[in-house]
Amino acid sequence: MGEFELIRQFFAAAPCARAGGEVVLGIGDDCALLDVPAGHQLAISTDTLVAGVHFPEQPDPFLLGQRVLAVAASDLAAMGATPIGFTLALTLPNVDPEWLRLFAEGLNRMAESCALRLIGGDTTRGPLSLTVSVLGRVPAGRALTRSGAEVGDLLCVGGPLGDAAGALPLVLGQRQADAQLADPLLARYWAPQPQLALGQALLGRATAALDISDGLLADAGHIAKASRVAINVQRDALPLSAALLAFAGLPGARACALAGGDDYVLLFSLPAAEFSALLAEGWPVTVIGNVSEGQGVYLLDEQGRPLDVDRRGYEHF
Amino acid sequence: MGEFELIRQFFAAAPCARAGGEVVLGIGDDCALLDVPAGHQLAISTDTLVAGVHFPEQPDPFLLGQRVLAVAASDLAAMGATPIGFTLALTLPNVDPEWLRLFAEGLNRMAESCALRLIGGDTTRGPLSLTVSVLGRVPAGRALTRSGAEVGDLLCVGGPLGDAAGALPLVLGQRQADAQLADPLLARYWAPQPQLALGQALLGRATAALDISDGLLADAGHIAKASRVAINVQRDALPLSAALLAFAGLPGARACALAGGDDYVLLFSLPAAEFSALLAEGWPVTVIGNVSEGQGVYLLDEQGRPLDVDRRGYEHF
Repeated sequence: MGEFELIRQFFAAAPCARAGGEVVLGIGDDCALLDVPAGHQLAISTDTLVAGVHFPEQPDPFLLGQRVLAVAASDLAAMGATPIGFTLALTLPNVDPEWLRLFAEGLNRMAESCALRLIGGDTTRGPLSLTVSVLGRVPAGRALTRSGAEVGDLLCVGGPLGDAAGALPLVLGQRQADAQLADPLLARYWAPQPQLALGQALLGRATAALDISDGLLADAGHIAKASRVAINVQRDALPLSAALLAFAGLPGARACALAGGDDYVLLFSLPAAEFSALLAEGWPVTVIGNVSEGQGVYLLDEQGRPLDVDRRGYEHF
Repeated sequence: MGEFELIRQFFAAAPCARAGGEVVLGIGDDCALLDVPAGHQLAISTDTLVAGVHFPEQPDPFLLGQRVLAVAASDLAAMGATPIGFTLALTLPNVDPEWLRLFAEGLNRMAESCALRLIGGDTTRGPLSLTVSVLGRVPAGRALTRSGAEVGDLLCVGGPLGDAAGALPLVLGQRQADAQLADPLLARYWAPQPQLALGQALLGRATAALDISDGLLADAGHIAKASRVAINVQRDALPLSAALLAFAGLPGARACALAGGDDYVLLFSLPAAEFSALLAEGWPVTVIGNVSEGQGVYLLDEQGRPLDVDRRGYEHF
């Protein structure tokens, strides 16, 4: 038996690979089989992470295991889907049992927190990269898409922005900081928490939604384009964490929030009454702007005047 | 807009990316959405191909596009599933528009012949590799698995074996041959035809099935293990193509058939009456052995005596 066959058996025995729920047949046959309950549609999304491109060449395997699944699961959150399972295609330059053990631990941790079961995949030799496909279910016809934002809607986010981008110099070893500052930022980079419960709470309430992966301005542009509306973002309304402000300063923190990717926080539009209802239920949502007639994304100062920003989120004076 | 964003738009505009059928929402949102008809389960399988491991470092892009999808779709055939769609995670070292155009042509060709729609994926920079997840539907509780083979069943295959393995020296440029010999073998390597219709015809008839990707003996071993039976393969019953026999000779052709991978021909067990019914319907199926009590895989000579073969399919004398 080859070592890659052993790896497959290793993953098949992982806690997150247990069948159950909608997983009728998991790892070990030609296909996995899923039940999709009546009145539901299947949601699926695929993400690839490549070493040296999406994460450092020598990542901490536990953190990588967490992150690869979190990034993918965040797309389920953005549709309001309930997680079912995921497939993992893992390409490894060599077989290091301790690396695999730690990677599987991180993967299991995130799988458990997202209620996702490992249902299949592939393990191959080659330069380190990972492709995850996540599958979930969503009530038929009710999934949150990018195309329903309406003039007059509020624009909201599900939490502080920019922490993951702020953490990049730490991830890359370009800067150091005290643990008190560094730890919360690094946690947001390595273990973003997919906002699955919030996404489900937005079903029937939000008119459009996505998860911020490319940066707020770019992702707001995706909603503006798909919904054929203009989106106005109030610079002073951006929720910024204390750690990010202390680490990057206000202009730096704003730049991270506007253009830094990897936040995996939900961005969504909805009528004001729905926002009030969410707030009353205790969801950590913040209004950062609104939707108007027109096309494109506008960043506004405290007087509502458009600011000129570049793609990196820096203001031009 | 980055060049990888342009590639995403290029694939989104491909003929095989049109929504329709069970695909409610295709490329362009956070997830794709699929309808799974009532009384059906979703089948999903993931395969990764890495340059220099699963295909030559500089492959013909059209052929690669065909092959990556065929290999994955064959897993749907093995379950008796009806294809719905697929996601493609494509990692490329650089952006070559002509390469992409040809690759997409090959992908489209195979997608059309398999009735599979491109519903999402990811495009990233890195060493050339491809991960495809295919999705299909199968009547609930009726999927063909590896675990149902019963003592007394016949063992069958859906076509000639060993051609793809026989083609390997041609693929790798280690041997040349006249087009008359080379072309049919190379076609079996680069454009295997997933036996989707046969798989669906086996629903309710076959007791176990898989597609041969690791080689007949190894894959028969998977059925034997999952079904807790012994599987007997008659060496003289193996269907071998004229091209393979001419190119590799009888002992070489047999070794390719027994241990060569990449055939993507269905291997299945079923009662004799079901075999007769398939034959009467015109399916190109061949009996190559049977299922008996015990455990493991046995290769038998023309008198039914066990032969001693190694993992490469060569007989020991």
